[in-house]
Amino acid sequence: MQKTYLLAPGPTQVPDSSLLAMARPMIHHRTPEFSQTFKETAELLQYVFQTDNDVLMLAASGTGAMESSITNLFSPGDEVIVVNGGKFGERWGQISETYGLKVHWIKVEWGTAVDPAAIEAILTENPAVKGVLTQASETSTTVTHPISEIAKLTKDRDTLLIVDGITAVGVVPLPMDEIGIDVLVSGSQKAFMLPPGLAFIALSGKAWKFQETATCPRYYFDLAKERKNLKKDTTAYTPAVSLINGLKEALLLIKEEGIDNTHARHDRLARATRAAATALGLKLLAPDSPSSAATGIYVPEGVDGGKLVKYLRDSMGVTIAGGQDHLKGKIIRLAHLGYVNTFDVIIAISAVEMALVKLGHNVELGTGVGAAQKVLLEGYE
Amino acid sequence: MQKTYLLAPGPTQVPDSSLLAMARPMIHHRTPEFSQTFKETAELLQYVFQTDNDVLMLAASGTGAMESSITNLFSPGDEVIVVNGGKFGERWGQISETYGLKVHWIKVEWGTAVDPAAIEAILTENPAVKGVLTQASETSTTVTHPISEIAKLTKDRDTLLIVDGITAVGVVPLPMDEIGIDVLVSGSQKAFMLPPGLAFIALSGKAWKFQETATCPRYYFDLAKERKNLKKDTTAYTPAVSLINGLKEALLLIKEEGIDNTHARHDRLARATRAAATALGLKLLAPDSPSSAATGIYVPEGVDGGKLVKYLRDSMGVTIAGGQDHLKGKIIRLAHLGYVNTFDVIIAISAVEMALVKLGHNVELGTGVGAAQKVLLEGYE
Repeated sequence: MQKTYLLAPGPTQVPDSSLLAMARPMIHHRTPEFSQTFKETAELLQYVFQTDNDVLMLAASGTGAMESSITNLFSPGDEVIVVNGGKFGERWGQISETYGLKVHWIKVEWGTAVDPAAIEAILTENPAVKGVLTQASETSTTVTHPISEIAKLTKDRDTLLIVDGITAVGVVPLPMDEIGIDVLVSGSQKAFMLPPGLAFIALSGKAWKFQETATCPRYYFDLAKERKNLKKDTTAYTPAVSLINGLKEALLLIKEEGIDNTHARHDRLARATRAAATALGLKLLAPDSPSSAATGIYVPEGVDGGKLVKYLRDSMGVTIAGGQDHLKGKIIRLAHLGYVNTFDVIIAISAVEMALVKLGHNVELGTGVGAAQKVLLEGYE
Repeated sequence: MQKTYLLAPGPTQVPDSSLLAMARPMIHHRTPEFSQTFKETAELLQYVFQTDNDVLMLAASGTGAMESSITNLFSPGDEVIVVNGGKFGERWGQISETYGLKVHWIKVEWGTAVDPAAIEAILTENPAVKGVLTQASETSTTVTHPISEIAKLTKDRDTLLIVDGITAVGVVPLPMDEIGIDVLVSGSQKAFMLPPGLAFIALSGKAWKFQETATCPRYYFDLAKERKNLKKDTTAYTPAVSLINGLKEALLLIKEEGIDNTHARHDRLARATRAAATALGLKLLAPDSPSSAATGIYVPEGVDGGKLVKYLRDSMGVTIAGGQDHLKGKIIRLAHLGYVNTFDVIIAISAVEMALVKLGHNVELGTGVGAAQKVLLEGYE
């Protein structure tokens, strides 16, 4: 009678209202009924993206939208800066190189944020650089990069700031129009509380200008074509109908909560998780610039992080994430984004406490939970 | 983005497999397809009831099955003993009196179990007594009555032992054939992990003999008619088709877990809850003969139990039960029956800790959770 708890940084939990909407009988996508849903959903997306720019919906995972920002805005030979502080920073560079762009890599130690001065130095030395590609929240290292600071560098240059907000939009404030983000990308299976299958992308006016001259090849991910169709309340190619039905319900939940409250909730859950880890004597992976989407925690000496993740999943029904590459076996990542609240954090912490005991590491049961509860109490009147 | 947690002693949580089965399109009940499901479900019910007797399914709540045991087995003027140690004991007496039976009430202090000697005394003084009516688990007081001991008194007398097992079947062992229970009643919204709407009743051979001469009026709840139809894999009146579809899935989960493991899980969750309450310095309502279905806990001095239940439900999304009648406002009842496991207990305890703090009662956060975790660890290899 084991129950399962999905507490990894995506896919995240899906609320009932979205599950039920996605279970509705299929309808055709070229109908007034679907167009109405699509229109309302597109407007709600602007609310959560905190932008007046169009937010395009692609039937793809987030990587599809990342790729579309390269192919729609640049030409082979264009120079870009890539902030490489984890698996997803690396991905920006890989996509760029695939399309023949010249990449200026900024290698950032895993667990730390990029120093905007490093970006500025390259921009000054290489005035031809056309784009800065970074994550807002680097999921693999649970780090937040200083997007507002970086935006100050690109704003008045002929350079686009392209932000992977896959685990940041709906988690932390990223008002793109106000800050000066030119491209903001996200995906359905994160704070949008949906199954994987939809990617979102919003472009600034400056980005749309780049699009006019970009020569990288694109067909399915043709953003100008998508924007043209969006104005007619539809998509260029067949949309993922049931996911969009579910998305509308999820966005309505965020609208009802209020986006500022949504951000505050994520901040609170993240602080509670960090407080719990610290109370248990565990070291944080990103103590100085932590993400509000997930918290990386070093496993104690003598404990195999891989075994811990496996024990939690197979014996306790609790799915969290481990570390990647050189952090494999050394960290765990507890996610707290999307359809999560107080008791999701308490489940994660209490499960980790119990699993550590089972794997032979001595912790005082309830200590982490108690520290988390103190923070979580802030969420109640 | 508040999530809700159903931790009251019924209705209880429903597993996904049952929810999905109940969402299937409606089929007609006089079909080979439904008969096959019905037959399999009836056999699985015998497994969970731990009996070779037929287990009848009624489209009714548990009270319907309680009423049917009176009307099918007794005649006006018959004498019965009623163990009245709570709201549901009282109900046995009310039904009996409604049908003109003469009731020998045994008033039992709320929070304690009946003393079999009290039953024996009445039986000895009144050899005409035809039935002893009791709860196995009295939900209103979270007490377990000593059914095996009582069965020893009725076994060799011309007296039926009629047991309300509504929050006991599937929670604690009640092998009716072995112990000598003559009638065992339960309901779908308890350990059977379903919505309300189905009641179950099994009769011993001795009970079926009483049925032959009983003259109380019955029509919808005519158990002989139901038994006749059960042999043909159907019901006398229209069955609750979708609930039975869901029931089959729920019973399969119990079969897969193994009924002994099901009982052990309930015992473990109950002990964890009691350990948590004790660690928090709270007094148990039924320390000496506690139920494994739910745990009654006195609220601390100065805390209004009604407010505590309301705060948990409205502010924290956690539904538990309060006290009834003279215990109103004085106790809370945390349920741990049905589709529940480790993290349901942890949610309940952590929520109570936090709510107590919010209502001004000083508890060391995490203390109850830690005590529960120590017991819950037994459930893992």
